[in-house]
Amino acid sequence: MSKAKIRLCVDQQFGQGQSVRLSEAQAHYLFGVMRARVGSRVLLFNGRDGEWSAEIAEAGKRKGALTCLEQTRPQSQPPDLWLIFAPVKKARTDIIVEKAVELGVARLLPVTTEFTNSERLRRDRAEVHAREAAEQCGAVHVPTVENVVPLTRLLSKWDPVRRILWADEELAGEGKPPAELLAGRPKGPWAILIGPEGGFSEGERARLRALPWIQPMALGPRTLRAETAAIAAISLWQAHLGDWAAP
Amino acid sequence: MSKAKIRLCVDQQFGQGQSVRLSEAQAHYLFGVMRARVGSRVLLFNGRDGEWSAEIAEAGKRKGALTCLEQTRPQSQPPDLWLIFAPVKKARTDIIVEKAVELGVARLLPVTTEFTNSERLRRDRAEVHAREAAEQCGAVHVPTVENVVPLTRLLSKWDPVRRILWADEELAGEGKPPAELLAGRPKGPWAILIGPEGGFSEGERARLRALPWIQPMALGPRTLRAETAAIAAISLWQAHLGDWAAP
Repeated sequence: MSKAKIRLCVDQQFGQGQSVRLSEAQAHYLFGVMRARVGSRVLLFNGRDGEWSAEIAEAGKRKGALTCLEQTRPQSQPPDLWLIFAPVKKARTDIIVEKAVELGVARLLPVTTEFTNSERLRRDRAEVHAREAAEQCGAVHVPTVENVVPLTRLLSKWDPVRRILWADEELAGEGKPPAELLAGRPKGPWAILIGPEGGFSEGERARLRALPWIQPMALGPRTLRAETAAIAAISLWQAHLGDWAAP
Repeated sequence: MSKAKIRLCVDQQFGQGQSVRLSEAQAHYLFGVMRARVGSRVLLFNGRDGEWSAEIAEAGKRKGALTCLEQTRPQSQPPDLWLIFAPVKKARTDIIVEKAVELGVARLLPVTTEFTNSERLRRDRAEVHAREAAEQCGAVHVPTVENVVPLTRLLSKWDPVRRILWADEELAGEGKPPAELLAGRPKGPWAILIGPEGGFSEGERARLRALPWIQPMALGPRTLRAETAAIAAISLWQAHLGDWAAP
């Protein structure tokens, strides 16, 4: 359900008549792939100045320039939701990053756990992927991707003001059902925590359960893959506590 | 968050001591990929007899046989939820099929619409994909995939007892928020309807809006891809009206 309009995330200042340079990759995409030409219009955002319409002023093989015309939407931020996840196989990690941005996650925090089966996450690649998802879904914010850190280190420095919703596969069929659990919860800063394929170790589970600001939540009786659990948990959070809910 | 145990969907009868033959593809998977050997145990389901443990009795390069030991879980069905969707690009259609099964959809109904950008869906391929997802997620039912039909024909024969929840992107920011809309709705037979990339035409939208058994639902302010909308809508339905909710 995508809109055809071309949107680009560009880390430069906008303003009426302001010139904006394209990166080599963006020039290739715009002129090589999308066949845009001088005079065509695109939409720009940088995470600070809202969304702007711009006209192509210069189109080269590896470079290009746009001229800002006018602001089309003011700056806005997604709900204050972070996603803590263990990188899985490459294609499925890509799905997690893309869907988190589409569904409205502001910050992605990859972590290693005892059973993490893929410790590598190329941060630059994930950032490009997150920006492309923001371009595609009409967001005006730029999602951030942090470096991979061990979950234990992340938790030991965690500010408990930000509650954590933990999609806990071991809870299947037990605990409060998700819609009841989320109804009437306070809005505000939250993070969602998704385990790796294989789940958490007994030691990790004991630690997570002992922290009062971590809320475990079951996601039905079937085993969900990590990326499915992430999308389901974010959707439920958005519907109850995020910007899919009544203000 | 997958379990390591091997599960196979086999269209044969089960019973204590019953011999079950493997297809060539399953023999290759079991012996070539997973390196299982005679004497190893796997789990079987056929959509009728629940889940059984079985022992490998014969292991060949392209064939194999198992002996049923005992039933490990009774037969059960997922909630009575269907998914009506327009096939999109191959990789994204695969995601829709896999995630629908994981999240607990009983029947998949692909449709063509005015803006469908990919009319082909190889039903045999989608069925294999759906079975693999059922094997992976611990389901004991076998999801069915129907042939592609035009949406208009599907709607003209529709039994209104089965309500349709329509994830309507044009509603963004309007209408009742999803959690409010689903709270207190009657359980029972439902289908979820997801449009193609590009959405529905004006004519299709007018027709959908005129049918009283179709309930439009907005999914937040950002544009979701078809597969994201499908996963989000199924998750919300399961949490409020399906088997993720209190009985």
